[in-house]
Amino acid sequence: MKKLIRLLSSFVLMRWISLLTIKVFWALSRVISHLKIKALITNSGDSVCHYTVEIKYGDNIVIGDNCAIGKYSSLGAKSPITIGDNVTISRGVIIETAGLDLSKSAKSRHISKPIVIKDNVWIATNAIILGGVTINKNAVIAAGVVITKDVPEGAVIVGARNRDIKHN
Amino acid sequence: MKKLIRLLSSFVLMRWISLLTIKVFWALSRVISHLKIKALITNSGDSVCHYTVEIKYGDNIVIGDNCAIGKYSSLGAKSPITIGDNVTISRGVIIETAGLDLSKSAKSRHISKPIVIKDNVWIATNAIILGGVTINKNAVIAAGVVITKDVPEGAVIVGARNRDIKHN
Amino acid sequence: MKKLIRLLSSFVLMRWISLLTIKVFWALSRVISHLKIKALITNSGDSVCHYTVEIKYGDNIVIGDNCAIGKYSSLGAKSPITIGDNVTISRGVIIETAGLDLSKSAKSRHISKPIVIKDNVWIATNAIILGGVTINKNAVIAAGVVITKDVPEGAVIVGARNRDIKHN
Repeated sequence: MKKLIRLLSSFVLMRWISLLTIKVFWALSRVISHLKIKALITNSGDSVCHYTVEIKYGDNIVIGDNCAIGKYSSLGAKSPITIGDNVTISRGVIIETAGLDLSKSAKSRHISKPIVIKDNVWIATNAIILGGVTINKNAVIAAGVVITKDVPEGAVIVGARNRDIKHN
Repeated sequence: MKKLIRLLSSFVLMRWISLLTIKVFWALSRVISHLKIKALITNSGDSVCHYTVEIKYGDNIVIGDNCAIGKYSSLGAKSPITIGDNVTISRGVIIETAGLDLSKSAKSRHISKPIVIKDNVWIATNAIILGGVTINKNAVIAAGVVITKDVPEGAVIVGARNRDIKHN
Repeated sequence: MKKLIRLLSSFVLMRWISLLTIKVFWALSRVISHLKIKALITNSGDSVCHYTVEIKYGDNIVIGDNCAIGKYSSLGAKSPITIGDNVTISRGVIIETAGLDLSKSAKSRHISKPIVIKDNVWIATNAIILGGVTINKNAVIAAGVVITKDVPEGAVIVGARNRDIKHN
């Protein structure tokens, strides 16, 4: 089969068919993305959101204008999520209001707290924003960072330093 | 096209069609998820597992009762993975027994070690559990944390502190 | 419905149909993956790349021989991405040349810088490689690590230590 695939794909024609298919799927995904965000989030201004974004409790979400939410992100709005204008949310970002109250016993420890993300915030790929957090205007959250506390205006939050366990 | 989409979706009808489609897909995904876990993991009790979960070497996996495994998680069971009862595994969690033995040369360094996750453990979104690890009863693994060592009973493991490189 | 599903899946026949379907989808995904990488990245040698990998600006990507790129990874090549031979890129890895120049005002701060990954590098699951970085030969990047600086030859980069907030 490997041989057959290689033979087929060696033809220029095959490449163009693949590219065309990719473009058609891309256009379709735009339409589906638009319909999905409008169906699930009533207050989403003119913001856009990829169809692979998971939206839980969309009625608890308010999004301003000119925001974009990237592929495979997730908005878990058991408690309200409020997002301002011009907010960029990259690929794979998790915004999750639900969590655990560790002071309680296993049965009753599930809680959720609201999340507020103000204007012009930029959240990089795979960052995680947890319940109870307010991210103030113009803040930047770096890739892969987990946010559990409020972020001041204009802050740039990055993770801890890595270690080279071979050379040290 | 953008105009056309907006016009269409402004009709209430369109919203209901979208919501209905989402619900149908959701119901279908429940069925597919159930069939997939039962087909790939013989010993999975009455636990549930989203169909987007990647299952490698399912015959090496044992899952107890009343567990849930969230979307886009991955179980790589080259060595055995044993999961107890009432374990919650959130979205995007990676449980991977395969890794590298860094003391060996590039050719022969691929190894795998078993993973054991005991009763009532709670693993938050995007955490990573690597080979050789035992997570003991009632432990909580916070979002985005990478676990490379055993976790004692009832522990609550969180990552290192972030830094604000703007405000210091 | 739950009862019905359980009844159906209790039949051995159902299990075999599920397994067959999974195998057919798997074979199909191999074909689609091959066609996609060949269509989007002209210079990709005999390397393989899962069809769920996101490829942005494929014309700016060069990949050597015998590399593998896992599911749900993402290559964002606004600036060039150069990958050598025998490079292993696991599941969910983000290689993204685009970022922010934080010294500039919000309007003009979007920048991108090239990424170079040399021979025999091994990048574990969910690692993130950002713009401007060169990863030298034989380096290992551990799971979930964010790389923002050059990595020397043969280095083994792991993240910061976790904390147990219950027992300490």
